[in-house]
Amino acid sequence: MSTAFSFRLAATDGSARLGEITTPRGTIRTPAFMPVATLGAIKGVGWNDVKASGADIVLGNTYHLMLRPTAERVAALGGLHKFIGWPYPILTDSGGFQVMSLSQLRKLDEKAVTFRSHIDGALVELSPERSIEIQTLLGADIAMQLDECIRLPAAPGDVERAMRLSLRWAERSKRAFGDPVGRALFGIVQGGDVKPLRVESARSLAAIGFHGYAIGGLAVGEPQDVMLAMIEETMPHLPADGPHYLMGVGTPDDIIEAVARGIDMFDCVLPTRNGRHGTAFTRFGAINLKNARHTDDPRPLDAESRCPAASTYSRAYLSHLVRSNELLGQILLSTINLYYYQDLMHGIRAAIAERRFDAFRQQVKEGWARGDLPPR
Amino acid sequence: MSTAFSFRLAATDGSARLGEITTPRGTIRTPAFMPVATLGAIKGVGWNDVKASGADIVLGNTYHLMLRPTAERVAALGGLHKFIGWPYPILTDSGGFQVMSLSQLRKLDEKAVTFRSHIDGALVELSPERSIEIQTLLGADIAMQLDECIRLPAAPGDVERAMRLSLRWAERSKRAFGDPVGRALFGIVQGGDVKPLRVESARSLAAIGFHGYAIGGLAVGEPQDVMLAMIEETMPHLPADGPHYLMGVGTPDDIIEAVARGIDMFDCVLPTRNGRHGTAFTRFGAINLKNARHTDDPRPLDAESRCPAASTYSRAYLSHLVRSNELLGQILLSTINLYYYQDLMHGIRAAIAERRFDAFRQQVKEGWARGDLPPR
Repeated sequence: MSTAFSFRLAATDGSARLGEITTPRGTIRTPAFMPVATLGAIKGVGWNDVKASGADIVLGNTYHLMLRPTAERVAALGGLHKFIGWPYPILTDSGGFQVMSLSQLRKLDEKAVTFRSHIDGALVELSPERSIEIQTLLGADIAMQLDECIRLPAAPGDVERAMRLSLRWAERSKRAFGDPVGRALFGIVQGGDVKPLRVESARSLAAIGFHGYAIGGLAVGEPQDVMLAMIEETMPHLPADGPHYLMGVGTPDDIIEAVARGIDMFDCVLPTRNGRHGTAFTRFGAINLKNARHTDDPRPLDAESRCPAASTYSRAYLSHLVRSNELLGQILLSTINLYYYQDLMHGIRAAIAERRFDAFRQQVKEGWARGDLPPR
Repeated sequence: MSTAFSFRLAATDGSARLGEITTPRGTIRTPAFMPVATLGAIKGVGWNDVKASGADIVLGNTYHLMLRPTAERVAALGGLHKFIGWPYPILTDSGGFQVMSLSQLRKLDEKAVTFRSHIDGALVELSPERSIEIQTLLGADIAMQLDECIRLPAAPGDVERAMRLSLRWAERSKRAFGDPVGRALFGIVQGGDVKPLRVESARSLAAIGFHGYAIGGLAVGEPQDVMLAMIEETMPHLPADGPHYLMGVGTPDDIIEAVARGIDMFDCVLPTRNGRHGTAFTRFGAINLKNARHTDDPRPLDAESRCPAASTYSRAYLSHLVRSNELLGQILLSTINLYYYQDLMHGIRAAIAERRFDAFRQQVKEGWARGDLPPR
């Protein structure tokens, strides 16, 4: 097996792409969904179950890990894979998004963003070079450039300034990253909801040259049609020979629509976050287990699911656990949702391979639209 | 296989007893520790892991289950075993203890205890007959009589009144229970810290006749030596041909000392509760993973543990999860603790079988006293 990082496009169906990312730590089947291990753990789900759900890769958050346990500590302990017990591929983000959303922002200038830690108030500087250093210490198989992700809506002038800064940081990130064997660096398209800025960002990143290309700064509050329009505008300007990653997205519907527009990779906290709050994602749509109609229902959530928790436990039991705020309810629903997301990706990949992606998309959406099983 | 409930004493070593309880749903090796599935779930641990830890039986709380999801609902869904997905033996308590400790107590008289639900404030009456009815609806393999458990310290007059009421309720419980095949009813010794009352309670229960005998009203705040003295006083007056169950106990040290005095069964929330709060029970004693000395320690909690989480993950990772308040930390430490408790019971049983219980007890205590591994 080659130890190089590579991306191979196996089939296309319209704009939808079937592919395979090869890394020394394993193969990532694309389109891929990456569960989010914010602090080095998928919330509420053990690693064996994460693997069993079908995940090929998970995402770790640089911002969180740099503050606790710290990148240096993780490196001293043998790197993130060994630390958390996940020997398969890991992508780390750059920390930029969380700095903007979680920390008390101190200062953003050409050199770096300086912020106060939300844990202990310490002053921390994150530059493109430091972000790469941290991601290297963590041992990420796929690292991300530092970018400035601004909230929408924003004034076009602000969007442009952030996009141009992100481009300059992209160059610095690439220089800092160097050319390590088997590890990849992705650039991030910014430009908010301004189409020409998205195009310019994509073209400039392609000119710099990365192993893969992410679209950032979407799913930050804008309507889905704006997000999809930005993807459509951007995709023609991204190299086809690298994976395309839509950051922080999204709902099952967001994912299937983005795949239809050529996206290969996704990450999102929705399956675990909504699972912790009592919502299950299913082929019948999202189901709120707190709803009283489940309390006497002996049927499983989905008898045909590959997930044991979805096909075995009664809705009555799941509902009871959720209503009683039992930890096991959070565990089971988070697990059910991780399986559902991976099953969706599996279905997407199979459909592209067989050139029936449009039919698959329609069929899945019809299932969601029909809604849950009728009451008994 | 017989479908009757039976208890067989296989060996004794001093007062320590090795035995086996046979039920239609499986065999319970004694001395046995029962993890507590308060609301129909072991907090933070999936059922596969509960079984893998070595548990033969779990405990469900009548008080909690009668209020939510309700015994009638559980019965309509096929009983507690089917509802929760645990096909092995289940013991249910009578509800009495939690009524006294959790609910706004309304009235206690000869007939019943009447209280307001802590969930919705509804007025609920729990009589000995209703408690048995509920436990039968749940489908408990071992049911407990309703008793009045009073807090210590208490005036001797109050202790005596509660003990005598518990005896009258014992008779009513037995009458209500009848003689169902394969299911057992245990009486409960009360009498607080008053030795003659304990003796009278034990003798009276033996005269009524039960499948097994519990000692209640201990580990409610009194020092360990008082608890052990009460056990010593009580045991000679309990029939030897039924299991002896010390309710709500306890720490590993409590358990090993109680086994030395003839106790066969235990239940306690400590392994999961303390696990949720960052404490691991180990053969090195209780270890607080929040302690800073673990943050850089690559060693597993206990390389020789049978529990994968204890033998695989570094102390640094477990500590990080606990300090970050990650759900996975609660899950892993609760699992580690369930394994430790079951391993302790396994060691106890093996030692009794080989007539070396005293040496085992001393060896285990020396391990706890030595404390955790020295720093690296």
